[in-house]
Amino acid sequence: MNFKMIRYTLGIILKFEALFFLVPIITALCYGEHTSLSAFSATAGICLFLGYVMSCQKPRDMALRARDGFVIVSLSWIVLSLFGAVPFVLSGAIPNYVDALFETVSGFTTTGASIIDSSVLESLEHAVLIWRSFTHWVGGMGVLVFVMAILPLSGAQNMHIMRAESPGPDVSKLVPRVRRTAIILYIIYFALTLILFLLLLIDGVVASDAKNQMGVFDALCTAFGTAGTGGFGVKGDSIASYSPYVQIICTVFMLLFSINFNSYYLALRLKLRDAFNSEVRAFLLIVFVVIAAVTVNIFTSGTEGATTLGEAIRHSAFTVSSLISTTGFATLDFNLWPEFSKLLLVLIMFIGACAGSTGGGIKVSRIIILVKGMGRELGDLINPKRVKKITIDKKPVSSEVTRSVNAYIVTFFIIFAASMIFLAPDGGSNGLLTNFTAITACINNIGPGLDMVGPSGNFAFFSPFSKLVLIFDMLAGRLELFPMLILFAPATWKRK
Amino acid sequence: MNFKMIRYTLGIILKFEALFFLVPIITALCYGEHTSLSAFSATAGICLFLGYVMSCQKPRDMALRARDGFVIVSLSWIVLSLFGAVPFVLSGAIPNYVDALFETVSGFTTTGASIIDSSVLESLEHAVLIWRSFTHWVGGMGVLVFVMAILPLSGAQNMHIMRAESPGPDVSKLVPRVRRTAIILYIIYFALTLILFLLLLIDGVVASDAKNQMGVFDALCTAFGTAGTGGFGVKGDSIASYSPYVQIICTVFMLLFSINFNSYYLALRLKLRDAFNSEVRAFLLIVFVVIAAVTVNIFTSGTEGATTLGEAIRHSAFTVSSLISTTGFATLDFNLWPEFSKLLLVLIMFIGACAGSTGGGIKVSRIIILVKGMGRELGDLINPKRVKKITIDKKPVSSEVTRSVNAYIVTFFIIFAASMIFLAPDGGSNGLLTNFTAITACINNIGPGLDMVGPSGNFAFFSPFSKLVLIFDMLAGRLELFPMLILFAPATWKRK
Repeated sequence: MNFKMIRYTLGIILKFEALFFLVPIITALCYGEHTSLSAFSATAGICLFLGYVMSCQKPRDMALRARDGFVIVSLSWIVLSLFGAVPFVLSGAIPNYVDALFETVSGFTTTGASIIDSSVLESLEHAVLIWRSFTHWVGGMGVLVFVMAILPLSGAQNMHIMRAESPGPDVSKLVPRVRRTAIILYIIYFALTLILFLLLLIDGVVASDAKNQMGVFDALCTAFGTAGTGGFGVKGDSIASYSPYVQIICTVFMLLFSINFNSYYLALRLKLRDAFNSEVRAFLLIVFVVIAAVTVNIFTSGTEGATTLGEAIRHSAFTVSSLISTTGFATLDFNLWPEFSKLLLVLIMFIGACAGSTGGGIKVSRIIILVKGMGRELGDLINPKRVKKITIDKKPVSSEVTRSVNAYIVTFFIIFAASMIFLAPDGGSNGLLTNFTAITACINNIGPGLDMVGPSGNFAFFSPFSKLVLIFDMLAGRLELFPMLILFAPATWKRK
Repeated sequence: MNFKMIRYTLGIILKFEALFFLVPIITALCYGEHTSLSAFSATAGICLFLGYVMSCQKPRDMALRARDGFVIVSLSWIVLSLFGAVPFVLSGAIPNYVDALFETVSGFTTTGASIIDSSVLESLEHAVLIWRSFTHWVGGMGVLVFVMAILPLSGAQNMHIMRAESPGPDVSKLVPRVRRTAIILYIIYFALTLILFLLLLIDGVVASDAKNQMGVFDALCTAFGTAGTGGFGVKGDSIASYSPYVQIICTVFMLLFSINFNSYYLALRLKLRDAFNSEVRAFLLIVFVVIAAVTVNIFTSGTEGATTLGEAIRHSAFTVSSLISTTGFATLDFNLWPEFSKLLLVLIMFIGACAGSTGGGIKVSRIIILVKGMGRELGDLINPKRVKKITIDKKPVSSEVTRSVNAYIVTFFIIFAASMIFLAPDGGSNGLLTNFTAITACINNIGPGLDMVGPSGNFAFFSPFSKLVLIFDMLAGRLELFPMLILFAPATWKRK
């Protein structure tokens, strides 16, 4: 364990966090919000000072082992969240620190689960609201990879960190030239966000009769929340009171941000066949089938707000895209939908987005590998002599990848079951469904669940201990489980 | 595909079924139940005739490929159930054939999920009740292996069948001498059942003041239901109104029948260290911990019927043993217990018994392999250079076993999710918890679940289609998933 290197990297992360605070600080200046201004400035000052102290002395040995990479990633996210929560407390927006931490972790992990009551939300200062949304955008692509793209570290060390922070089972062939790759991916991320922001901004031109119209502030926050597939909104009813135009734009972009960013890179290089790979195809197929099924179900059952076929399609498409992309925005309270639709929504919460996107969940590529593994096993039983390898896009999947995907699934369900046990004593009155979907929403980085944590509810009623469990789940879900688990393994902390 | 051999084996199975019908026929004669007598005799006659026609001509080519073994096993269980259901309809006990089939499959698969209302149960004829319980006993150890132990087939072919029918990931070293092994295991099964029967019979001597006392009939049915870890009872309140003595005996024997029968064989040969292997130790540890947790939870929350510590321990031990052994007997309606206990009970429903026992569920040995696989993955991430193999009882676990356990888990959850979708349209009013635990109870071969399918409810309200889905789940759960799935794979039916 290279402790000096960990200290050094955490210092740099803190300096970056101070930089991130500029967004709410500028917002506070624009709107003349003095409480927020002092809260964010003070925290930025602390971060800058601590960051400087921790990173002023460059360690002589900068070599990172694989486990160092994991520990750096998980500690960075924890430190980011610990300090990111401070302005919420200082500004009085969220007086309780555990609540503030929950909200911040929910932000950075792009979960979007909130402890703020929707009736209070709109009375918060702009600086606080934009910080919530901005954490989604920072967390979406991973802050470590961003830092590594800028810092002059050698490639091999970056790889350990990128492997630990990138969502999905495989970073594919782009890995070797980590730094260049990271920069390209960030440019794509930035460009897509900008396009989304501009499209949201012309809402006033396109649909001027909506109850809530997009101003610059709303468009910016919504763009951050969509791009990071986060889900924090600035209105008490999420996206419901914006125009259908805004809802359609969000639907499209939630899906766009759920697709592997490598695909865009490949598409830009005109390698369309590679860009439109089997994961993307499977993802779009699932989206299409579930939207169709939910549309029929809510339309035929006369669900409130979806009485015309057009409305049913719009709300179904929005909700399915919101949940499979693990964003968590809502236009209708899907907790009131028929059981069949709710079940399909819970199932796609587990599937999640494509690997290498900003979305969470188990990831479509993992599901493909698992289903193919099952098919292989069945084939083996029918014809034991014919040895068959799993292939994806005609390339064989190595047994290491299959093994680690299997270990991922098992670990996922073990963490899930353990969380259920930890939440159970608290949740006497919540019922199993609330706890079950609360954990589903947190570990898959979605946001809302069903029942008491449905789109019209929030997470405030959980005990502080339960909130800490859910904080762990959000971090574990965002960092692909193992980096968080490694923190608890004694072998990690042995000096060798 | 050796179709002639399949026809031949199914014929033999039908002749055996005719033999099994002797149990209710003799019972009907004892109690002078004419309706049942004619119903069971007629069905026995049909089975005998069909069995004779199908098996009179011995196929020249008796070679079985692996897939033939799987197909024979799944078709045998289906045929057994199809004919086993007929007397229920003929006797008028269960007029609807789908309901009767559900009850019969539930019996043979040792599930114990019933469509008979508990208020009607005690008015059924003895022959019908004993047939329900006897199917548990027949299904517990697997009828195919029994037949193979008697029939003069060569060892290699038996192995395919034994592999397909035996519960658990591995039949361990006993496999080569299949026939002898099978006979030993049946002797152990028979002996344990006999001891249990005798212990239940002396209930009148030990505890003469209980509301319901064990007669020969009750003792026999309860012994069959316990030995097969089935769960059909002869009283409307399951085991609740029997004496505490009976409840304690059942608790002990439900656990005994959940342990790998190889362990008893090894113990008889005084290889105690091998008998008390890590699966047995893990199983007992889980049982102990969950009993303790549930006891504390129901005692401190003042649950009805568990107000003294003694009662709390007895009901907790009974319920935990009943559910982890996948029997499904009840002494209290655990659906009314606190959420924490209910959650633990649902979790152990998934864990299930040891491999090679009569119990169902995922099996403790699979859980061990999965958890060790997760630990190995974590270890690999911390120290990538150190290659570590999973070992159990100091023996390395082959990568084929790990792979097939992983495929099993994935298949399990895919069947589970598909069943949830199939049941959802029907279950509009049931709620997710009812459907979730109904599938849990069926695929793990337990019997009762929670909510509407809790110990005081039954499965009658499901639509015929949902019942067929649950029938598939019960068969898939009992036969370890793949034999049932193979029936649907086109590759299986190709002549080559």
